[in-house]
Amino acid sequence: MNTTTSAAQTPLDRFYAVIPAGGTGTRLWPLSRAAAPKFLHDLTGSGSTLLRATYDRLEPLAGDRVLVVTGQAHREAVCRQLPEVTDGNLVLESEPKDSAAAIGLAAAILYQRDPQYIMGSFAADQVISPMGAFQEAVREAVATAATGKIVTIGISPTHASTGFGYIREGEYLAVPGAPSAKAVVEFVEKPSHEVAESYLKSGDYLWNAGMFVAPVALMLKHLEANQPELYAGLNEIAQAWDTPDRDEVTARIWPTLPKIAIDYAVAEPAAEAGDVAVVPGTFLWDDVGDFAAIGRLNSAREVDAVTVMGEGARVFTEDASGVVVSDTKRVIALIGIKDVVIVDTPDALLVTTTEHAQQVKSAVDHLKASGDTDVL
Amino acid sequence: MNTTTSAAQTPLDRFYAVIPAGGTGTRLWPLSRAAAPKFLHDLTGSGSTLLRATYDRLEPLAGDRVLVVTGQAHREAVCRQLPEVTDGNLVLESEPKDSAAAIGLAAAILYQRDPQYIMGSFAADQVISPMGAFQEAVREAVATAATGKIVTIGISPTHASTGFGYIREGEYLAVPGAPSAKAVVEFVEKPSHEVAESYLKSGDYLWNAGMFVAPVALMLKHLEANQPELYAGLNEIAQAWDTPDRDEVTARIWPTLPKIAIDYAVAEPAAEAGDVAVVPGTFLWDDVGDFAAIGRLNSAREVDAVTVMGEGARVFTEDASGVVVSDTKRVIALIGIKDVVIVDTPDALLVTTTEHAQQVKSAVDHLKASGDTDVL
Repeated sequence: MNTTTSAAQTPLDRFYAVIPAGGTGTRLWPLSRAAAPKFLHDLTGSGSTLLRATYDRLEPLAGDRVLVVTGQAHREAVCRQLPEVTDGNLVLESEPKDSAAAIGLAAAILYQRDPQYIMGSFAADQVISPMGAFQEAVREAVATAATGKIVTIGISPTHASTGFGYIREGEYLAVPGAPSAKAVVEFVEKPSHEVAESYLKSGDYLWNAGMFVAPVALMLKHLEANQPELYAGLNEIAQAWDTPDRDEVTARIWPTLPKIAIDYAVAEPAAEAGDVAVVPGTFLWDDVGDFAAIGRLNSAREVDAVTVMGEGARVFTEDASGVVVSDTKRVIALIGIKDVVIVDTPDALLVTTTEHAQQVKSAVDHLKASGDTDVL
Repeated sequence: MNTTTSAAQTPLDRFYAVIPAGGTGTRLWPLSRAAAPKFLHDLTGSGSTLLRATYDRLEPLAGDRVLVVTGQAHREAVCRQLPEVTDGNLVLESEPKDSAAAIGLAAAILYQRDPQYIMGSFAADQVISPMGAFQEAVREAVATAATGKIVTIGISPTHASTGFGYIREGEYLAVPGAPSAKAVVEFVEKPSHEVAESYLKSGDYLWNAGMFVAPVALMLKHLEANQPELYAGLNEIAQAWDTPDRDEVTARIWPTLPKIAIDYAVAEPAAEAGDVAVVPGTFLWDDVGDFAAIGRLNSAREVDAVTVMGEGARVFTEDASGVVVSDTKRVIALIGIKDVVIVDTPDALLVTTTEHAQQVKSAVDHLKASGDTDVL
């Protein structure tokens, strides 16, 4: 154990950001692909990829203390996006092992470097604004975490979504520097529409956006208690991480690890143990779950009532509305068609409606089943 | 004047087919283009272009007596489609001069070869079946023309279309070999919907499909009476046509000719003079006026409720209906969208609905106005 921390530190001095950059964003096919997943795209017209924007939100809080977990296939693209990230802070998964392994390994590596670290894990494929409100929530979460809590940042629901899990809030915790922190009573799974409406009405529930801020020691304590096999494997990799044995040990252990979500492995049992708190996020948050979201998030370029994403697109509309995402330089003419979603890429074209945008996943499943994997 | 005709001939021995192959088929953009107009496409999945199918319908009646009028730009494509057509039977317009000049020049050339010829003019971009019923109508029309009439073949209306002109039938003419031939009372322009419904109800009206069968001498007589300037110019070209002066004279005269439709220049005044007859066509006829027609005409390849045209297309549908015309090898996924029309070409994409398919023309006009002429 090293001794780089001291009593004079503020909680934020102990903060280390972790960015899990995984998932292909199937519901954004054919824009998002196995080889070019969602987090490597600029889905808001901001000029930044979602990954880079995530880094830029965290850098003012974390400095260069940012660790990224991604797939081996994305190494080059991620390094191009984030040249600041050193080899030791880039965890490359040889195969996906779900969130408990990804976040748990980050916790274990950081624990080896300094057991006082407070990690904050933020997925690479979410859209958040304004940055200041997000950072304020993270500051409160870090202050709360420093009191010995796993802290999630929950999103105030704007509608009765059935696509997210929910967090039930309890009492205020009265943490200094975290006036809005509350206890978490429980995490609940994606609800039915009726249940979601009752949650919304009650005012006691927040959306679970998968953001966790916690002392690495506490994360690992719950992981060890609930998933001892996973914990042992991650710990073995972590002990070798900042040594010449990193690659050998990782290559040997990683494929053997069990697949489980961080929610089951840590968050839910920790909530039952009374160890979880929540800070409500007052910022705008969008997980860009489908192309309808892209229509909402891109207001910069409108051709009549059609939101257009893509530099090269020449779009002509007449009596049309919806979203065009173009990855080509083709002329696209839309005539007399409403709420349409068009995604135009060199080898695949998707045409659907904002209402049916969530069904894109099943198209991808179908293409996979039919062997058309060249476009996935 | 030569003397290849004789009293022993049947009217059909005097028959010469003329195929005006013009128009870009704007409402079929981006499949049909200035450089690849409608008649050069196989729009029915038959394996033949519309031009070739038109030739094949006429060849059993006309043998090699088929004259084609088209734009200079299409010379190569037309020769590839119709290798049987000789130089002397291929009229190449240096610029479009409307139908009176195109059909009138054909009449004038044929008159020079033999004033007894009966010409039959049939546009290259229509779909007709079965062939036998069409040929029977042409035989009746030729027999009627031989009695000194300009004969149009009218189509029994199947609905109150506002997109076609109509022909008002009169009394039966009792022509031997043409039991269904009637006098034409008048040609009327495209009607309003109410008027079209009254036409349909009366049973006295046929659609004007622009098919004319007439002695070339009679065509020219009416052309001379109504458009003396046009007649004189066409006559000068025709006299030079089968001589070494063809190209020089054509190049000099053609650009000076007035633009006028054959309906105004010949058909309507001839009808007023009582010189026009009609033979009703009992065949299926479609002018493939928009992409909705392509959906009707192609039943061969259906993916669920989506009609697919195009060899290379890999189409996946879920809860979708409509028409896909593909000129690429891309994967096309349609999800939850009904009555959609998608035309996918390498440099332009059209998305509309069967209901709005007629509006495609205005998209093309808009692209022209905005300078995006590379894709027209």
